Amino acid sequence: MTSSAVSQALYLDDIAVGDEFVSGRYHIDAEQIMAFASQFDPQPFHTDPEAAKQSFFQGLAASGWHTMSITMRLIVESVPFAGGIVGAGGELSWRRPTRPDDVLYVRSKVVEIIPSRSKPDRGIVMVQSLTLNQRDEVLQDSTAKLVLFRKQVG
Amino acid sequence: MTSSAVSQALYLDDIAVGDEFVSGRYHIDAEQIMAFASQFDPQPFHTDPEAAKQSFFQGLAASGWHTMSITMRLIVESVPFAGGIVGAGGELSWRRPTRPDDVLYVRSKVVEIIPSRSKPDRGIVMVQSLTLNQRDEVLQDSTAKLVLFRKQVG
Repeated sequence: MTSSAVSQALYLDDIAVGDEFVSGRYHIDAEQIMAFASQFDPQPFHTDPEAAKQSFFQGLAASGWHTMSITMRLIVESVPFAGGIVGAGGELSWRRPTRPDDVLYVRSKVVEIIPSRSKPDRGIVMVQSLTLNQRDEVLQDSTAKLVLFRKQVG
Repeated sequence: MTSSAVSQALYLDDIAVGDEFVSGRYHIDAEQIMAFASQFDPQPFHTDPEAAKQSFFQGLAASGWHTMSITMRLIVESVPFAGGIVGAGGELSWRRPTRPDDVLYVRSKVVEIIPSRSKPDRGIVMVQSLTLNQRDEVLQDSTAKLVLFRKQVG
């Protein structure tokens, strides 16, 4: 399944390894980058365009957690799991900085399904999400462990 | 080294496995939880206290990415790495939901130091950060891969 507009809520029984979901687009600008960073990642390369030029990033870059937070929003809007997107954890890596006026979108894929042994009503779904920009360059590669329930029967 | 107020910038040469850093405290309230979630994780258990009662979380809970973003701020304020906190990636798990009026702090520890083979001026420092609440319950366990430079000589 590849879809950017699935509306039906999906239970554990409804999904399979390889299922894919594509999000809508999100435009990020310098003002948003600086606002997020001043609250959560106050470092000059995220808050000060001039200072950022002399930094590791050679120009203003979004906090990686800003990129991840936008990714989460795009996942919530595009992966229609019943009960919502409930994460137990995950891992991620940043491949390239997110820059002012990038337009982000997310391609998510089910990579593993692990039924719970102790709780037969649910399982863990491993979903890999690539966050891409308008040139289809990968900015972030993340894999989340999501809790998903089976359809209740009876 | 355990310190909550180190002011000197630390280079790769200055740190050792086992070094610890303790952050200040951060009070999170319901308004902040709903504001973050409405921007980045718009799901009822993060945005609507009434609907949250019937959810998986049994009450309003912060987005895990909000907990992570606050953790990042506390790390930036408490881990005085020269050149700042520059992450290549990491992994995390959520142990318990972050609730309105929790007071968070972060204990960070250097768990591994990996000198770069190709770039002798830098290395990767693996830092594990536990995010705790006012009852010292672990809310989040995260490990970040941070880029850190050596002192420039000559």
